Amino acid sequence: MNVEVISLYKLIFMNEKLVVVGAGLCGTMLAIRLAQRGYTVALYERREDMRKTGIAEGRSINLALSDRGIQALHRIGMSDIVNSEGIPMHGRMIHKGEGETTFFPYSGRKNEYINSISRGGLNIALLNKAESYPNLSIFFSHKCEGIDFSNNRISFFDEASKQLVSVEASSIFGTDGAGSAVRQSMMSLSGRIRFDFSQKYLTHGYKELTIPPARDNGYLIEKEALHIWPRGDHMVIALPNLGGSFTVTLFQDFEGPFGLNAIDRDLALSRKYFEKYFPDALALMNDFEEDILNNPSSSLGTIKCYPWAIEDKVLLMGDAAHAIVPFYGQGMNASFEDVFVLDELMDKGFSSWKELFHKFQEARKPNADAIADLAVDNFYEMRDSSGDPLFQKKTLLEKRMEQELPDKYFSKYSMVTFREDIPYYQAMIKGRKQDEILLEFCRNIDDVYALNLEKVLAHLALKM
Amino acid sequence: MNVEVISLYKLIFMNEKLVVVGAGLCGTMLAIRLAQRGYTVALYERREDMRKTGIAEGRSINLALSDRGIQALHRIGMSDIVNSEGIPMHGRMIHKGEGETTFFPYSGRKNEYINSISRGGLNIALLNKAESYPNLSIFFSHKCEGIDFSNNRISFFDEASKQLVSVEASSIFGTDGAGSAVRQSMMSLSGRIRFDFSQKYLTHGYKELTIPPARDNGYLIEKEALHIWPRGDHMVIALPNLGGSFTVTLFQDFEGPFGLNAIDRDLALSRKYFEKYFPDALALMNDFEEDILNNPSSSLGTIKCYPWAIEDKVLLMGDAAHAIVPFYGQGMNASFEDVFVLDELMDKGFSSWKELFHKFQEARKPNADAIADLAVDNFYEMRDSSGDPLFQKKTLLEKRMEQELPDKYFSKYSMVTFREDIPYYQAMIKGRKQDEILLEFCRNIDDVYALNLEKVLAHLALKM
Repeated sequence: MNVEVISLYKLIFMNEKLVVVGAGLCGTMLAIRLAQRGYTVALYERREDMRKTGIAEGRSINLALSDRGIQALHRIGMSDIVNSEGIPMHGRMIHKGEGETTFFPYSGRKNEYINSISRGGLNIALLNKAESYPNLSIFFSHKCEGIDFSNNRISFFDEASKQLVSVEASSIFGTDGAGSAVRQSMMSLSGRIRFDFSQKYLTHGYKELTIPPARDNGYLIEKEALHIWPRGDHMVIALPNLGGSFTVTLFQDFEGPFGLNAIDRDLALSRKYFEKYFPDALALMNDFEEDILNNPSSSLGTIKCYPWAIEDKVLLMGDAAHAIVPFYGQGMNASFEDVFVLDELMDKGFSSWKELFHKFQEARKPNADAIADLAVDNFYEMRDSSGDPLFQKKTLLEKRMEQELPDKYFSKYSMVTFREDIPYYQAMIKGRKQDEILLEFCRNIDDVYALNLEKVLAHLALKM
Repeated sequence: MNVEVISLYKLIFMNEKLVVVGAGLCGTMLAIRLAQRGYTVALYERREDMRKTGIAEGRSINLALSDRGIQALHRIGMSDIVNSEGIPMHGRMIHKGEGETTFFPYSGRKNEYINSISRGGLNIALLNKAESYPNLSIFFSHKCEGIDFSNNRISFFDEASKQLVSVEASSIFGTDGAGSAVRQSMMSLSGRIRFDFSQKYLTHGYKELTIPPARDNGYLIEKEALHIWPRGDHMVIALPNLGGSFTVTLFQDFEGPFGLNAIDRDLALSRKYFEKYFPDALALMNDFEEDILNNPSSSLGTIKCYPWAIEDKVLLMGDAAHAIVPFYGQGMNASFEDVFVLDELMDKGFSSWKELFHKFQEARKPNADAIADLAVDNFYEMRDSSGDPLFQKKTLLEKRMEQELPDKYFSKYSMVTFREDIPYYQAMIKGRKQDEILLEFCRNIDDVYALNLEKVLAHLALKM
């Protein structure tokens, strides 16, 4: 279905009032798509309008946008933003201890890269677009206080009028993020709807820092790469921003002599830690002490739950349904893909919202679980495996295969990141199996460059 | 340390005010033990005083009390209640389709049995005892509204005065059950304390029914047994009460043509279902239709979380920390054992509540996880394995071993239920290994009675 074309289905549900809770990336995209389909949509947001107040602190500043997310942006007519706001990152720039760097492309195929994009810029562009629809209203500073499921009324505290507002909704979409108030309301029905829920934290957290632009507003380090300073069980990464700066993220254990808890309020210790492990990165960070003092240390967790829907009343989407750790760069992409998948199901036709929500959660849950697990795996892979010679040999072999057999081989990373036609779950199953076979295969290989790749492919096909 | 002897440690903490939230089985026992140690304890309960209003509906009426629970009751000087209020259940009475019954003792050892005891009777006895301590105050109809962790103030809504009461506590014990409000307050700190939490429901739920006393106030079926009508993926059980009645529990899927959702509001269908699968049980239930109409269908879930403690401020215990499904009959026993384990740690000495809470959660968490997993396993074992000939052969072999080698062999069930000296985690590891070895061993055995048991024991020792 074309963007902006109002679907036939609107005739059936035209009078329904849809409430979307949370005007972050997922919620605003969803509201736009529902408005494009002709529905009357009310979008409620707890925070003030970020176009007036700036971006809320303590949330990651830039994100990696890749093919699944771009496909969804295309669906709402906004894929141009990838070029106007995004910075291509063609691979990982690894910074070793002595300041030496090595570049590892994300794919053997030239046209496969990810994009660093500003969360704020993207969210603002979505809000601007959302405002252009007469059938979409946005209410800021409205904090969800709970849902009365028997009457399908949702209450908000309006920070402006200091009043409680009760809204009758035909259906409520909970896109209010990892700490979702809509999900919290579903929790109060736990036993009745047998609401499975889990939140699990890593022992590591993160803290954001900055590399400023060069004097000429250029970039102090390679612009079109995701930079990594891997140091075993802790690391620093940096993603480029428009304007020459980089957002730097330290991933580190909360505990220990240089743990986040220890360095958080201690400038001298922070500096000592960075001088010891990341001296070249430290040398680039003019605002180091300010960032250490002002930026919070945040935790990293995975949230899973099920069901996501209650009849036709509520549907959780995005982080509210499946918050994941950032190590696959797929959080936003998975949330955008939720909107795309729901839209595809709407294209196929549905006789009730209940049926639609049911189909959506059944189709989407295994894929959400898969990317959650892949993201945690990648945390350990980045920490534990990236220095392992066998692992490196396998990575090299995969790069050759992608370069020389670009239509025949796709690594797990490529399937997850660049193959929006392969659901996460299938990418996980196939990718893990491939990894296992190739690792075993590489045990008996001395020189990856001497291999006949067609034979490797045949070996893979045999073992899969 | 003897019951009622006030510990030396009271001298250190005498002025501390301890708040226990939840006057159910675990909380009241804990409050008693803390009072016995000389602390000033305030015990708050959401519900009204059950001694005035009767037991809250929708909660299971009787429970299986076994050695871990009895050990804790002994510690507070209340083990006599086992004899005065409990009914020994020496084994399972299996009711087959045609009304035929077979008795399977819980252990090959005569002195090992479990006890059916009334939740209400036990709770009331604990409350009566609690009231006898001048340093223990009980506040009913006080609903916990949240905790301000920075000032360690806990708020309650007092249903009687309709006022919000704010209490300053040196430490707060959350013993307020599976739906714990104290735990809910900890959830609000999720990221900061990296609070792992999960709730997971079974597809099955339960509904309680009744077998009334005989006309002479005797028992219509064998008194000293736990009765089971196993029917594959659904079953009915019955536990004896003082006075001749039995509390009957149906465990059944929520979905399906005879699912709980279907039969719940449908007397004719309920009757049809029982006539088809449990005709002999139905024949005993005079109040069947009343029970079907009035008693709710409840869900069955497992709750795990960690940490249980925040510094010296809060400690979760009992179901609030680890709610489990009922299929091992260990929920109350595990909660009582929490109190016992905390008390043992206090006996060993502690320099701060923070240290004590930390030691408690580290020691207790693996055991709480173990009994949670064992209880879920047992659900599937009761459903799937109990009809399997190999499984039955193994059960028979174990019974022989327990009878003929009473000091040398303990089944997994015996270790969990009767060996309070073996922590749940160890009982699980050892019990699972034993099961695996004996099942494998029984594959090649025709006649269990022809076996030389010392040789079986030697085989086990070799493989463990």
